[in-house]
Amino acid sequence: MSITSFNPPVRTLMGPGPSDVHPRITSAMARPTIGHLDPMFVGMMDEVKQMLQYAFKTENKLTIPVSAPGSAGMETCFVNLVEPGDKVIVCQNGVFGGRMKENVERCGGVPVMVEDDWGKPVDPARLEEALKANPDAKVVAFVHAETSTGAQSDAKTLCELAHKHDCLTIVDAVTSLGGSELRVDDWGIDAIYSGTQKCLSCTPGISPVSFNDRAIEVIKNRKTKVQSWFLDTNLVMGYWGPNAKRAYHHTAPVNAMYALHESLVMLQEEGLENSWQRHMDNHMALRAGIEAMGLKFIVDEAHRLPQLNSVTIPDGVDEAAVRSRLLNEFNLEIGAGLGALAGKVWRIGLMGHSSRAENILLCLSTLEAVLSEMGADINKGVALAAAQSALK
Amino acid sequence: MSITSFNPPVRTLMGPGPSDVHPRITSAMARPTIGHLDPMFVGMMDEVKQMLQYAFKTENKLTIPVSAPGSAGMETCFVNLVEPGDKVIVCQNGVFGGRMKENVERCGGVPVMVEDDWGKPVDPARLEEALKANPDAKVVAFVHAETSTGAQSDAKTLCELAHKHDCLTIVDAVTSLGGSELRVDDWGIDAIYSGTQKCLSCTPGISPVSFNDRAIEVIKNRKTKVQSWFLDTNLVMGYWGPNAKRAYHHTAPVNAMYALHESLVMLQEEGLENSWQRHMDNHMALRAGIEAMGLKFIVDEAHRLPQLNSVTIPDGVDEAAVRSRLLNEFNLEIGAGLGALAGKVWRIGLMGHSSRAENILLCLSTLEAVLSEMGADINKGVALAAAQSALK
Repeated sequence: MSITSFNPPVRTLMGPGPSDVHPRITSAMARPTIGHLDPMFVGMMDEVKQMLQYAFKTENKLTIPVSAPGSAGMETCFVNLVEPGDKVIVCQNGVFGGRMKENVERCGGVPVMVEDDWGKPVDPARLEEALKANPDAKVVAFVHAETSTGAQSDAKTLCELAHKHDCLTIVDAVTSLGGSELRVDDWGIDAIYSGTQKCLSCTPGISPVSFNDRAIEVIKNRKTKVQSWFLDTNLVMGYWGPNAKRAYHHTAPVNAMYALHESLVMLQEEGLENSWQRHMDNHMALRAGIEAMGLKFIVDEAHRLPQLNSVTIPDGVDEAAVRSRLLNEFNLEIGAGLGALAGKVWRIGLMGHSSRAENILLCLSTLEAVLSEMGADINKGVALAAAQSALK
Repeated sequence: MSITSFNPPVRTLMGPGPSDVHPRITSAMARPTIGHLDPMFVGMMDEVKQMLQYAFKTENKLTIPVSAPGSAGMETCFVNLVEPGDKVIVCQNGVFGGRMKENVERCGGVPVMVEDDWGKPVDPARLEEALKANPDAKVVAFVHAETSTGAQSDAKTLCELAHKHDCLTIVDAVTSLGGSELRVDDWGIDAIYSGTQKCLSCTPGISPVSFNDRAIEVIKNRKTKVQSWFLDTNLVMGYWGPNAKRAYHHTAPVNAMYALHESLVMLQEEGLENSWQRHMDNHMALRAGIEAMGLKFIVDEAHRLPQLNSVTIPDGVDEAAVRSRLLNEFNLEIGAGLGALAGKVWRIGLMGHSSRAENILLCLSTLEAVLSEMGADINKGVALAAAQSALK
């Protein structure tokens, strides 16, 4: 065996995540490792929590980064709030609603599914029906921004309905945090999780979560222990909590926290609302180019996520071959469809640092070049001008 | 709010982990992020798995890095192998045996505790008694290298006993991997987990695990689903597995994997057995200095881990004040006692890149300086010469 150092190619990341990571963030990650109980690290942790509150628009004291990817953040919400026998209404309109169902079942809970078509938002009327039919439901779970389709649901309305029927809410904000409007306190979200590798443009591996006092009260009054030791918020709070003794729970991924800290400093420098606006502006430019080329969005305009663009594939085109060529010839990554949309769409991400004018022009020009060479039926020579005019 | 970039101090890390991280590893971590399904990343994953097999001395195909810290590696072993009602014999001789018990209980299993004094190895005779008294036990779990005490147990003998009584073994090798003799296949370890931040000297956050075919067979024949979606090896293998389609499971912590890859390249360059020997040689030098000073080791020589040195505190000395002074005046971190040993010992780590001659002399000289100033009853002016002579 003689394996040598790995030097990755330099890609432009316009898939469903990870997104392009700004060099400030990778540089921060490479700073010298210090101990996870070092007073300097503990001080940095407090800043991370404070900046996560800013990003989530919440005053929740239990706002922390879980030391593992978004899937573990999802699991943190479910294992802490769902006990055996608990009924959970899960709204599914894509891949991640299905994962929520898996989580409920593995906690011994009883999922009640409210299904909507992939690419559509969650329908509040159907949720209300389910709430009426299940007066014993304890939790409503839904995905704010479905990464698998690019559809955005009306989190505020869904939370209002859930609360009207005395349910807690668990919200997946993996793809929305930092990229589009999200107001944890104003909308009454009880538990929420996200990821670092989407609109925060940080390296993947950490999952910010937040629980309000109502959710904490439910956790404190559990009849059973949380089934995961690693994700038990009662234990994690001994390390991360507001008045915690900083007791050892697990060894925090120190350098990954440096990266998250830097990404949140950058978000704060730009301003959260400015970041939301940038994601929308750049989406409008990409959209102008994509539509000029003759391709279509599968999500209707009112519910479309600006940061995750699911675009139809021209008839007769081998979509995987297109993605390979973009990657191999231009170092550009765009995403495949997932689940029910596999083979039917491309997912073009404009998240965080990937949401830039130069990325839009690169994506449109390389896509047009490759599709033209493959003989696809698209409008040529018009996409760039359309995008440029929208950028102005 | 105006929080600025975090610039950590430059510490020398001689606690129980994280250990000093070589700049080659932090530099690797800062390389450009690519997609977790990028063919180049998938190729790197294969190399990581191959080098982990080398480090564990195993041919196990299911040898992978879990995308979360060592505690999650522990949980991966327990949630996959333990079903409700399963009896698990847990040998406890420190903090981490207690955490194993928590894991068994949270899986619905029935722990049978075999307790030894903290600082002693697990006693094979007591394990055998427990095995005879519990013929229905399914799993034996123990810690190879107790990070909380510095005691090393005889993993080979304990595994032989477990197998004689038809039990699977789960072994904690968080602190031993790369630092002292560990032979997964030769010793018949069925499931094992470790961490990156100890003798591999990588940044914290990832947990290498390995399962042999016997363990995989047990997992395949489970009656119930694994309670954790994130840690379910059946699902993880779709992404990491030998013939996997590299199906999306979770977004891997891409840059953390670069770091792990580089740390394993460095281990391979040094040679595993050479690394074990280096840890022993440097322990002997530290020991010579510590004993010359008049301090004592709490673990007897035959069972002492070279990489984790639990050392007694001189009478009347405020141990926390000593650690603070070492950190604040010399940027040197040593560890406090944990659990039953809190306040009774310091834990001095010589792990991975921290296991170097210069660190030994720094630790001895600063410790002597601080203890002398605090009026502790130690032998002065002899530790450095003793260590230097042992280094030769």
